[in-house]
Amino acid sequence: MVAVALRCRLATFLVFAQIAFILLFAFFTEYDDDAKPIPRKLSDGSNPLHKYYPMFQDVHVMMFIGFGFLMTFLKKYGFSSVGLNMLIAATCIQWGTLCLGLFDCVETGRSRISLGITSLIEADIAAATVLISFGVVLGKTSALQLFVMLIVELVLYATNEWIVTDILKISDVGDSIIVHTFGAYFGLTVSVLLRRSELDEHPNEGSNYQSDLFAMIGTVFLWLYWPSFNAGLLTGEVQHRVVINTYYSLAACCVTAFAISALVDKHGRFNMVHIQNSTLAGGVAIGAAANLLVHPFGALIIGSSAAILSVLGYKYITPFLNSKLGIHDTCGVNNLHGMPGILAAIISSIAVSAASEQEYGYSLYEQYPAMAPPLNSTELTRIQRQFPDVTAGIGRTASAQAGMQIVAMLVTLGIAISGGIVAGVLLRLPGLASPPAESLFDDITAWEVPETEVYKPSESNNAVSPRSNNEIK
Amino acid sequence: MVAVALRCRLATFLVFAQIAFILLFAFFTEYDDDAKPIPRKLSDGSNPLHKYYPMFQDVHVMMFIGFGFLMTFLKKYGFSSVGLNMLIAATCIQWGTLCLGLFDCVETGRSRISLGITSLIEADIAAATVLISFGVVLGKTSALQLFVMLIVELVLYATNEWIVTDILKISDVGDSIIVHTFGAYFGLTVSVLLRRSELDEHPNEGSNYQSDLFAMIGTVFLWLYWPSFNAGLLTGEVQHRVVINTYYSLAACCVTAFAISALVDKHGRFNMVHIQNSTLAGGVAIGAAANLLVHPFGALIIGSSAAILSVLGYKYITPFLNSKLGIHDTCGVNNLHGMPGILAAIISSIAVSAASEQEYGYSLYEQYPAMAPPLNSTELTRIQRQFPDVTAGIGRTASAQAGMQIVAMLVTLGIAISGGIVAGVLLRLPGLASPPAESLFDDITAWEVPETEVYKPSESNNAVSPRSNNEIK
Amino acid sequence: MVAVALRCRLATFLVFAQIAFILLFAFFTEYDDDAKPIPRKLSDGSNPLHKYYPMFQDVHVMMFIGFGFLMTFLKKYGFSSVGLNMLIAATCIQWGTLCLGLFDCVETGRSRISLGITSLIEADIAAATVLISFGVVLGKTSALQLFVMLIVELVLYATNEWIVTDILKISDVGDSIIVHTFGAYFGLTVSVLLRRSELDEHPNEGSNYQSDLFAMIGTVFLWLYWPSFNAGLLTGEVQHRVVINTYYSLAACCVTAFAISALVDKHGRFNMVHIQNSTLAGGVAIGAAANLLVHPFGALIIGSSAAILSVLGYKYITPFLNSKLGIHDTCGVNNLHGMPGILAAIISSIAVSAASEQEYGYSLYEQYPAMAPPLNSTELTRIQRQFPDVTAGIGRTASAQAGMQIVAMLVTLGIAISGGIVAGVLLRLPGLASPPAESLFDDITAWEVPETEVYKPSESNNAVSPRSNNEIK
Repeated sequence: MVAVALRCRLATFLVFAQIAFILLFAFFTEYDDDAKPIPRKLSDGSNPLHKYYPMFQDVHVMMFIGFGFLMTFLKKYGFSSVGLNMLIAATCIQWGTLCLGLFDCVETGRSRISLGITSLIEADIAAATVLISFGVVLGKTSALQLFVMLIVELVLYATNEWIVTDILKISDVGDSIIVHTFGAYFGLTVSVLLRRSELDEHPNEGSNYQSDLFAMIGTVFLWLYWPSFNAGLLTGEVQHRVVINTYYSLAACCVTAFAISALVDKHGRFNMVHIQNSTLAGGVAIGAAANLLVHPFGALIIGSSAAILSVLGYKYITPFLNSKLGIHDTCGVNNLHGMPGILAAIISSIAVSAASEQEYGYSLYEQYPAMAPPLNSTELTRIQRQFPDVTAGIGRTASAQAGMQIVAMLVTLGIAISGGIVAGVLLRLPGLASPPAESLFDDITAWEVPETEVYKPSESNNAVSPRSNNEIK
Repeated sequence: MVAVALRCRLATFLVFAQIAFILLFAFFTEYDDDAKPIPRKLSDGSNPLHKYYPMFQDVHVMMFIGFGFLMTFLKKYGFSSVGLNMLIAATCIQWGTLCLGLFDCVETGRSRISLGITSLIEADIAAATVLISFGVVLGKTSALQLFVMLIVELVLYATNEWIVTDILKISDVGDSIIVHTFGAYFGLTVSVLLRRSELDEHPNEGSNYQSDLFAMIGTVFLWLYWPSFNAGLLTGEVQHRVVINTYYSLAACCVTAFAISALVDKHGRFNMVHIQNSTLAGGVAIGAAANLLVHPFGALIIGSSAAILSVLGYKYITPFLNSKLGIHDTCGVNNLHGMPGILAAIISSIAVSAASEQEYGYSLYEQYPAMAPPLNSTELTRIQRQFPDVTAGIGRTASAQAGMQIVAMLVTLGIAISGGIVAGVLLRLPGLASPPAESLFDDITAWEVPETEVYKPSESNNAVSPRSNNEIK
Repeated sequence: MVAVALRCRLATFLVFAQIAFILLFAFFTEYDDDAKPIPRKLSDGSNPLHKYYPMFQDVHVMMFIGFGFLMTFLKKYGFSSVGLNMLIAATCIQWGTLCLGLFDCVETGRSRISLGITSLIEADIAAATVLISFGVVLGKTSALQLFVMLIVELVLYATNEWIVTDILKISDVGDSIIVHTFGAYFGLTVSVLLRRSELDEHPNEGSNYQSDLFAMIGTVFLWLYWPSFNAGLLTGEVQHRVVINTYYSLAACCVTAFAISALVDKHGRFNMVHIQNSTLAGGVAIGAAANLLVHPFGALIIGSSAAILSVLGYKYITPFLNSKLGIHDTCGVNNLHGMPGILAAIISSIAVSAASEQEYGYSLYEQYPAMAPPLNSTELTRIQRQFPDVTAGIGRTASAQAGMQIVAMLVTLGIAISGGIVAGVLLRLPGLASPPAESLFDDITAWEVPETEVYKPSESNNAVSPRSNNEIK
């Protein structure tokens, strides 16, 4: 009886949301000009699609394969990890398009959201934010709760993204502040509000040999395609530099994560949790400064630092947060996205404080538009005579820009945490099918799990090795 | 004795086929001009390869990882799913090149088949057709039977592709009619002819926890790269639009498939079969109309409709077909490729009936060449003065084109079903090593399965955790 | 106590190496000009990044997913396969950048190594060499030993690459000689020096059903992206031709590998070892000649020949080498990289012996620079008047070039084997934590393996299917 009601509730939510998305798309979206027919012309052979598509697909793989399989490390929660990840991301793609598009319309004064390859990348990146928060509450929430969370989170994500990028005018090419920091602390706040005593030492919360291998599929694809995540919306030599910085940051991060993982283990062994997660922290930590001339050796230092921070986080901070502060963090998101995201903001602040037009040329004003000379200044007139694309800034100094990177991080933390409180309160509403204590971290609450045990004596041996029947019985 | 004979038979078939392919390639193929040296020149820096290669590789991944792992859901048939999938696809690449090339030579009057990056994409797409049919008969056929099936199927596929594209002049950018509908109903017809009573409730026909996770690797890669499948051979703003339409159709399809899956389950749980398959139906259903101005909200509606059709198909139609009509469909191909393919044809018919030069510009005549003004008409002369590339059509009206899309679907169904009958009769020939009843859906018929049981009591605990021996014993 | 010391040793090595890399990068590297800001300019929209990035990412996936998962076939060594593969590759990326860059500076006279997208591809390819050697010694070495091996190997790899490419001036577009042959025989030599009696029939050395499926993820991605490996650093119509040749070589290789695998099995079944490895040999065998006009049917013959060589190698040569010559080769690298690499050199020698300017145009002199007319020859002057990029060669004839391809292979073998002896002696030094006999091919030496047995009687059934408890008990 209750099950029937719940069934209707989740399905009803999903159906209504999908209908709402269809209506909103009908009234508020249109194809980008680059995807519309050209009146009285043939197809145009060249199109921005070609430029963005390969990195778009890399980011797409990170969202669905990367995050999805990374979370399959839980031994009884694989269907949910990869399945609910897919449901969440596919919902975020639609809802994120609308939330981001709204602010885009506000900025540009257009009445319809324009859909093209760059907006697809942005929709995928919006999904990343929610998937990061999902990692914190993994195994402790119903699909219905997750759905409510994502609806709230993306509105706040888009708001924060607009404040940070368009008002505060900071640069965060790899979305370390906007996505990683936001998603992590939003999720951690929600987790505090969903705290329950049964989480302590729950027998389902752990991996097994196979689930750890499945998780490595996610880890490795995230690691490989991270340069595309950081560089996907950029162009020219800036994009090239972001790729190089991210590549070397991740390489150093991987080596250092292995080293520290062995060092903190009493037998000197590697720990799968660290390898699955901390090897990726270098991609986050370089994110807000990857466009800057940090030099390749700077990228290595940043990657190594992130690895140290992340492994020590898993070893010492996560248990502390859980036992002392009551913050349960299933995937250790604080160590992969949270602290490395804050580190990224600090690094970007230091790196930008030394940036000058001498070093960067006028592309500095593309990346940090507030640093461009102000309207009607002779300096601006001089530049615009040669490059009409440069827009007026406010003549912000490098150190002011450095400060603003930190302000943006603090604003992000503020919105993430207060938004997390709102979402957490909503998620505690009765009727959202919070999973029962014994079914935490268990697919059984949301999935038809296959009936037949593969290793069931009468037939299972066959499955793996028909010839070993006798030995086993 | 029988085994020895069979061994020779399969290997002999494969060896002879490979020798035949080598000879046919020697006499009938050559490199495309873009892959030949330029006499008395240096290498040309620009080459069409760059334009097509990223989407080619996406399609390539769909064929071998996507289809291959999607079918590993069967608990005892994983080696065959991914392994035979690889064998079939690698054979199809060669045989498909020849079959498609023959008709290409007929059209162009060339005496040799020209091999370049677009023909590689076409060969991969030809493989898709056979892999779809493979999904219907999965677990019920020997490698030898599959080999015979593919030889027959690709000849008919190329014939149908030629009729539908070059004679009937319809547009099917995502191959929903040409590949999905054809492959599904060809396979279903073969399956009817291979019907045997032992299929009912066969204990091997089912998944387990691990096999369902392996299958999700296939599902997610198919889902991610589907925009490349639909847009891979296109160019310019049409390609851009196909990517956008396919992306949003799949997003809506995913959300709706989860909703309907929960709705039709009596406990409101998600069913892995639906998630693995029905989330993809939106890619098929948009395929024949993805180039048209269906508007993003139209793409969402199409994706959602496909999901509803597909999940209900798995829930109600597949069991009905199996029990009442004797059509056994291992992967439920009718629900993922068959019915959504027919839906795609109907959608394309509706969408094209409203297409006009006013809306699409002259690119309409590139996509629907029969709609171009006829030879020697003043209208054509006027257009060609500006765009000499536009070729004469027959002045087909939009509603005639709409009708022709349906005719093409019916022709495809006719050729697929009659071809399936021929193939089915051939596959019933004795000596093709049809698997014995107890080994249906079991790798043991075709593979050396590893000897050692990993969880064998005496050493198995070790396999997972050597340190927990004592605790377990 | 010993464990503590060892822990410190490995971590210390890794930490010192990472610090050394940072210092060396600080003093000897810089961004490529294409990744530096353009003084007093805006960003440049066009950048070589776009041209190389898609194939770079394909190669990147091959290194980390391809090699990593291919080696997970061992039932108890999955963490090490994919994890240590990641550690090795991430280290090689840094150390390889430095080793290759040193010789690049020698050639160009620059004082700093220039880092850009092509150097990232080269660093990944350097990693391939070490990962191939890793395949030989898989399961028989500690992380510390592997680390020492890679440091030595990459120095010699870069030296050999410089001798073969810049001194002997041979062409090896797919690195069949430089990477595959070198890595295989270096590793095999190391393996001889690490020979120990406990390797015979070790119970851990084998696969299980799941581990074989994980391995197929690696196989299929390697197979799919091999055309990118062979063509990634090329351009224009040569690149196009390499893609076509590699694609068809692999297709024929796959079909033939299945055929021969069935043929050599007494029950006519396929063997997973052959399918996982021999299907790839065609990518190696075509590598050194893929730029030449071998004709598509030539590519099919080359792929088929490699498959025959490789499967027969697994069936007959590997057991022979192990039992008679004491060469233990865990992954059968000799059959996938070693012998096919030598075959590739021979094929390239035959194919180039027929190459002429008439057939290839002046692009011949780009690919085989020694064949260009010598300095101050009238012929060179004539060509340079039209194409100033063509540089003076030594007027080497086609047959001399053919001979030089063989010389290069012999030089490579010489350096690989003598380098392997040096590395092997180093690896036998006490204190490098060579794994104890009972823990060969076992993750337990290097990893914290999850404590909880998933199929532990009291709770395991739950793990797979909570509803089947009653049925099973």
